[in-house]
Amino acid sequence: MPEFRLADFGSYTAGGRVVEISGEPVRELQFTSTTTYRHDPNGALAIEHAYVQYFTPATRSRLPPIVLLHGGGMSGAMWETTPDGRPGWLHGLLAAGLEVHVVDNTERGRAGWCPVPGLWPGEPILRTVEESWTRFRFGEVDAGGQRRAFPGQRFPVAALEAFARGFVPRWTTLGDAAAAALGAVLRRIGPCILLCHSQGGEPAFRAAAAAPGLVRAMVAVEPTGFADPAALRDIPTLMVMGDYREHSAHWRGVSRRCADFAEALAGQGGRADWLDLPAQGIHGNSHMPMMDNNNQEVLARILRWLGACLG
Amino acid sequence: MPEFRLADFGSYTAGGRVVEISGEPVRELQFTSTTTYRHDPNGALAIEHAYVQYFTPATRSRLPPIVLLHGGGMSGAMWETTPDGRPGWLHGLLAAGLEVHVVDNTERGRAGWCPVPGLWPGEPILRTVEESWTRFRFGEVDAGGQRRAFPGQRFPVAALEAFARGFVPRWTTLGDAAAAALGAVLRRIGPCILLCHSQGGEPAFRAAAAAPGLVRAMVAVEPTGFADPAALRDIPTLMVMGDYREHSAHWRGVSRRCADFAEALAGQGGRADWLDLPAQGIHGNSHMPMMDNNNQEVLARILRWLGACLG
Repeated sequence: MPEFRLADFGSYTAGGRVVEISGEPVRELQFTSTTTYRHDPNGALAIEHAYVQYFTPATRSRLPPIVLLHGGGMSGAMWETTPDGRPGWLHGLLAAGLEVHVVDNTERGRAGWCPVPGLWPGEPILRTVEESWTRFRFGEVDAGGQRRAFPGQRFPVAALEAFARGFVPRWTTLGDAAAAALGAVLRRIGPCILLCHSQGGEPAFRAAAAAPGLVRAMVAVEPTGFADPAALRDIPTLMVMGDYREHSAHWRGVSRRCADFAEALAGQGGRADWLDLPAQGIHGNSHMPMMDNNNQEVLARILRWLGACLG
Repeated sequence: MPEFRLADFGSYTAGGRVVEISGEPVRELQFTSTTTYRHDPNGALAIEHAYVQYFTPATRSRLPPIVLLHGGGMSGAMWETTPDGRPGWLHGLLAAGLEVHVVDNTERGRAGWCPVPGLWPGEPILRTVEESWTRFRFGEVDAGGQRRAFPGQRFPVAALEAFARGFVPRWTTLGDAAAAALGAVLRRIGPCILLCHSQGGEPAFRAAAAAPGLVRAMVAVEPTGFADPAALRDIPTLMVMGDYREHSAHWRGVSRRCADFAEALAGQGGRADWLDLPAQGIHGNSHMPMMDNNNQEVLARILRWLGACLG
């Protein structure tokens, strides 16, 4: 790996709200094996903010800062080292001279979450290894129950368990809070590129629509949610799509909705370009191209598009 | 801030276990505003591992890598930028040439947590702003309910709400899992320095005791838990203590237990040194010296001790 020279790095939080808890009983809790303490749950709790870790290369490209928003059940760690130990898109973006802001949005990772019963609707869920295998298009399960990777699969399937250690619980009911926290991040950074993945599509498009002029370009990696195309028509958008999508109704549906959104954007005078990897002769990418064995090649194509768009 | 030159950086997970969930009902969940999915909670879940982010400076000191373990209700973000935006101990350690491994241990931050009801005993709790004010020795609350910082307070009290956005929920029942995950981190790194804070003391001392020869020195910042001194006697230990401890029975108790542990260590032929800041003429430090306005000065004294011990 080449040396990384950083002018600055660090972290901050943005957005969220403070809730006041009252009327709950005080409890005596075991703290460590030698100490207890009286836990009073009543008072002010800071919730629904985003945590952001940023890195500023010493030598900057002309591109604006890029904000990375994870997909469902993931945290910002998904952009770092891959499950099998290779450099991630975070490394590639820094090497290309971009200032990178890695988000753990509301409820994920270092942003924390709210354990007060009833305060958040619904229940948290944690993805199983089994679900990731089929949902992320790594392969099939044969009649004997054995996992079979799709031929030519580029995801490092031998590191499946390490990949699963990157999953964090999520709620499916906090879309408003997630879009609001991301909006606070965008306003703090100023003009930027927004790169989102999967379930991160909806909060990303919503936050971009609510912050006119801030998002200079959107890179949407297999997004599963969108926002009002009329409010997004000034943002050049790249849709990044992997392989094997024809294998399931779910991914045929996602592909169709991406195409519908691109058409709606064009209907508003906007623009969506496509990095449809198999259509461009690059085969074997899963739903996690930032971790696939050609992750830096996929990123290079995204950077080429950004350069043409904004350079 | 000076430029940071990194030979490498990235992240990994270590330890933990896989649990198999079965017999739970499948549910249809709203996913984004345009999609739903069938959530099957049955299958393998990866839990109880640690997440670690590491940074390797291009120019290394002679000291071994240092592992940073957060206290209760915090994540590894506590070592980064302070709540009022100054460089943290992570920056200072890198500037001093140490390879740094920042841990989010079991249940915290990017390590994720287990939402399956009943699998972890007890209930998660999130610290209130009010509790942090008194428990972390920032100040008092006067008869009118107003917060009054202790005279000479070095914690950036104006950034109290930003500080609270760094809190994450924790269980108080997972000491075994936390010590085991940290042990897996130590075995992966090899010989190292371990620096722990507050509730992190117990898993840190336990993991060090269970990994003979790996921890070359221990820096314990106001630790609230310990392990068998006989198993720790070969590890030179620095106890770092802040100001205002005489104001509460809790901190008088912690101080006494730290002194008892140091004495027990000496009784085994071991060694504990003291960086008792007020006793050394440095006044105004809270329970969070890594965030106080003299944080780099406190770190410089820790580094001087490490240099004398291991240099």
